[in-house]
Amino acid sequence: MASVSWQSIVAEKKASIENSIPNDWKIENAPSEDNLMDFPERCGILSPFDLEITSLSATELVDRLATGNLKAVDVTLSFCKRAAVAQQLGTETSMGYVAWVGKRDETDSVLVQLLRQAGAIFYVKTSVPQTLMVCETVNNIIGRTVNPRNKNWSCGGSSGGEGAMIGIRGSVIGVGTDIGGSIRIPAAFNFLFGIRPSHGRLPYAGMANSMEGQETVHSVVGPIAHSIPDLKLFIKSVLEEEPWKFDSKVIPLPWRQNEEEVIKSKITYGGLNIATYHHDSVVLPHPPILRGIDLVRSTLEKNGHNVFSWIPHEHELGVKLINKIYAADGCTDVYKNIHASGEPAISNIKDLLNPDLPKADVNEIWDVQLQKWHYQCAYLDKWRELEEKMGREIDAIIGPISPTAAIRHDQFRYYGYASIFNLLDFSSVVIPVTFADKEKDLKKSNFQPMGKIDAEVQAEYDPEAYHGAPVAVQVVGRRLSEERVLAIAEEISRLLGR
Amino acid sequence: MASVSWQSIVAEKKASIENSIPNDWKIENAPSEDNLMDFPERCGILSPFDLEITSLSATELVDRLATGNLKAVDVTLSFCKRAAVAQQLGTETSMGYVAWVGKRDETDSVLVQLLRQAGAIFYVKTSVPQTLMVCETVNNIIGRTVNPRNKNWSCGGSSGGEGAMIGIRGSVIGVGTDIGGSIRIPAAFNFLFGIRPSHGRLPYAGMANSMEGQETVHSVVGPIAHSIPDLKLFIKSVLEEEPWKFDSKVIPLPWRQNEEEVIKSKITYGGLNIATYHHDSVVLPHPPILRGIDLVRSTLEKNGHNVFSWIPHEHELGVKLINKIYAADGCTDVYKNIHASGEPAISNIKDLLNPDLPKADVNEIWDVQLQKWHYQCAYLDKWRELEEKMGREIDAIIGPISPTAAIRHDQFRYYGYASIFNLLDFSSVVIPVTFADKEKDLKKSNFQPMGKIDAEVQAEYDPEAYHGAPVAVQVVGRRLSEERVLAIAEEISRLLGR
Repeated sequence: MASVSWQSIVAEKKASIENSIPNDWKIENAPSEDNLMDFPERCGILSPFDLEITSLSATELVDRLATGNLKAVDVTLSFCKRAAVAQQLGTETSMGYVAWVGKRDETDSVLVQLLRQAGAIFYVKTSVPQTLMVCETVNNIIGRTVNPRNKNWSCGGSSGGEGAMIGIRGSVIGVGTDIGGSIRIPAAFNFLFGIRPSHGRLPYAGMANSMEGQETVHSVVGPIAHSIPDLKLFIKSVLEEEPWKFDSKVIPLPWRQNEEEVIKSKITYGGLNIATYHHDSVVLPHPPILRGIDLVRSTLEKNGHNVFSWIPHEHELGVKLINKIYAADGCTDVYKNIHASGEPAISNIKDLLNPDLPKADVNEIWDVQLQKWHYQCAYLDKWRELEEKMGREIDAIIGPISPTAAIRHDQFRYYGYASIFNLLDFSSVVIPVTFADKEKDLKKSNFQPMGKIDAEVQAEYDPEAYHGAPVAVQVVGRRLSEERVLAIAEEISRLLGR
Repeated sequence: MASVSWQSIVAEKKASIENSIPNDWKIENAPSEDNLMDFPERCGILSPFDLEITSLSATELVDRLATGNLKAVDVTLSFCKRAAVAQQLGTETSMGYVAWVGKRDETDSVLVQLLRQAGAIFYVKTSVPQTLMVCETVNNIIGRTVNPRNKNWSCGGSSGGEGAMIGIRGSVIGVGTDIGGSIRIPAAFNFLFGIRPSHGRLPYAGMANSMEGQETVHSVVGPIAHSIPDLKLFIKSVLEEEPWKFDSKVIPLPWRQNEEEVIKSKITYGGLNIATYHHDSVVLPHPPILRGIDLVRSTLEKNGHNVFSWIPHEHELGVKLINKIYAADGCTDVYKNIHASGEPAISNIKDLLNPDLPKADVNEIWDVQLQKWHYQCAYLDKWRELEEKMGREIDAIIGPISPTAAIRHDQFRYYGYASIFNLLDFSSVVIPVTFADKEKDLKKSNFQPMGKIDAEVQAEYDPEAYHGAPVAVQVVGRRLSEERVLAIAEEISRLLGR
């Protein structure tokens, strides 16, 4: 077989993407502004009808389609146009590996199969970082995907293309996978809602990924959207198809309306009981994030809910443990795929996937798995202890999802706020809270770093550069508590006016 | 530290067990008969009151204790006496390893903690095989535990001491763990009921075991008892304590009465839909087992239920896969514990745990885990295909749990009938069906073996030697279907007159 250079594979792929866009939808002059959010409205390619359709939520679209007020073909066409416009500012199972360009799955994954049965239409695939194992979206095929709110900020990752595409309303709902924040970080950086369900809630069978068969910490799949009702619509639609009869890892747990009602009843009588924390004793979040937490706390208290303080239990230990798991095979799988085409590794991946790390021994893996279980049980003990101390059930924990607002390129350093809940397998919903504000969010004076990475992260903060960047928090419940955390997130969003 | 020989550790342990039995409860002359089942009645140590108490089911005991008809202290004393008698014919966390004699857990496991909260009284620990990884109960501490129905038969394993103790009613209910049949085989060999719940249904945290941290196929915990209502009592009592708030691996799934009702309603209207199979295309069961399956089929049909044929999907492949998992660390963990005291390995363990096997590489483990998932999903596909073909939901699969009735010593060769459902993580309930009968269960003439192990297993059959040995089947449902399989097992047992 004649060997083909990775550069020529990429050139061919780029041409194929370019050719997939009809001439009528092509942008003549690319906009020069940093903020691209209003470009779809003013580019002249979308009609007022297209703009109206693409402004609706998934829930609204489903209602209008069901009543015959809208046709599926029109909705699809409008979103195709808007996605094509977005693409030109920023489709195949490629995982960001050049070697996988052209590789197509012969069969649908279980999720795609069940979504099709539920009536979903698939029309666009979005970019992901090389390996999926980083929280910015950079690869050697598409290059870098930027944040439509500001070209200088990241759209997050790994499902960053999805975050940017939904952010600019080129899509109304999208799907991401999350083994260390890859659903939640793009949701946070694009002022969107996203849920990392616990492992086993939604079907993952038949999806491509790095490190297939790694089960110490499972990657999970979940939706990113513009509202909590849209996230619920997605999950309910999938669960109605009984995914546990198709994918052995899915738990036979239909949507539990009674669990949602428990929360609604607390909201009406006596209020929610929420524990919050500002930092994990490893890295102090930037001032906009700390203000976001304060805003959530004060909003809850003002509205009759009960707020407590959460003391994060040994997050440093937990983060070290999950980092060990990511690199358990000495990164053999990931670098095999990178080297298959000869492409270079992107700069960010070495933070989590350092090829100099040794491959773990089977008994070492078992030991790490045992430590993981002990850590998880200890965390549950702390949750029960707080409940016993306060004499009430604690409904959720709220904390940062990232130490920064939508981050500047190549600056993502610390995954711990997101990945700790992958290790714990807790259900987590990201909600947008506010925007960084240079007037309110001053740089800290007399900052005393807790360690090297804390110093690096805090040094990155610049009130001017981050002005306007989306600020989010995550609402976390025990394992498999999706109904409850979504109901809590919905109430908080309502109170915040989102 | 002066080194102590393993023989002296064992001698001391035996003396300590001997000393734990009060003189009044000592047997002067050990019985010489093969069948010991009626010895507790005729030994003179138990009063008529003790005999009455120890003949009750767990459900009956709980009722009488609740209404004040019985006192907990009397119940405990009666069972202690009966257990002490049983012990003399056959208590510490020792896992059958001499090195672990004297090793005590400082804290209760989550299960023990929650059972205590639910009012359980613990009074006896029973013997297990060295490593737990074999289906007969032999170790270098206690020696061999035999079947109380016939000294020449095994009590099964690994929870074989538990099976024998409950079989002779030295206990009314007991707990076993199962990674390849260790709850179900002792239940089957002692004419008892046992359930292997799916992983994540009951708490395992804090229990000692071999190969801790191995998560490719999880060992699970479950009860062994004299009736299905007693199994349900156990599971419901544990679930009422919300074990998922203590053990991170437990799924938040309370007892689902509605699932039980679905089955009850089918029993009343239209009948159950059950698929059965006689063999797995690897090893043909002995004649008494094949007759047991026929008896279940005809009993179901006679009573208005619908019976279909199940074609076991590539069990040979599945069994190879799980055997690879058992030995994934090249048996490092198990032999480390054996060698710690210098004791020899028991003869049976090399079938599953051969120290000559190589240690797998991390990427090989991931590959095995991926194969496992594919196999599980393919099995679900076959289940759905049969349902589509028959136009109805298939409620359970019924098949052999072991190729033999209660087996003669050192003859257990083939774990595949049990272990395939560990690989699939399906819920499985063992029910006693009948007894081997030398008049009905003739040795096969013109037997054509499917392979070497099939020839070996079939050669072991001897109608005379197995006459009267307990014959059982397992009732299997999809993952986490405990309520349904228990309800089905209860109905079948009722129809069989058990």
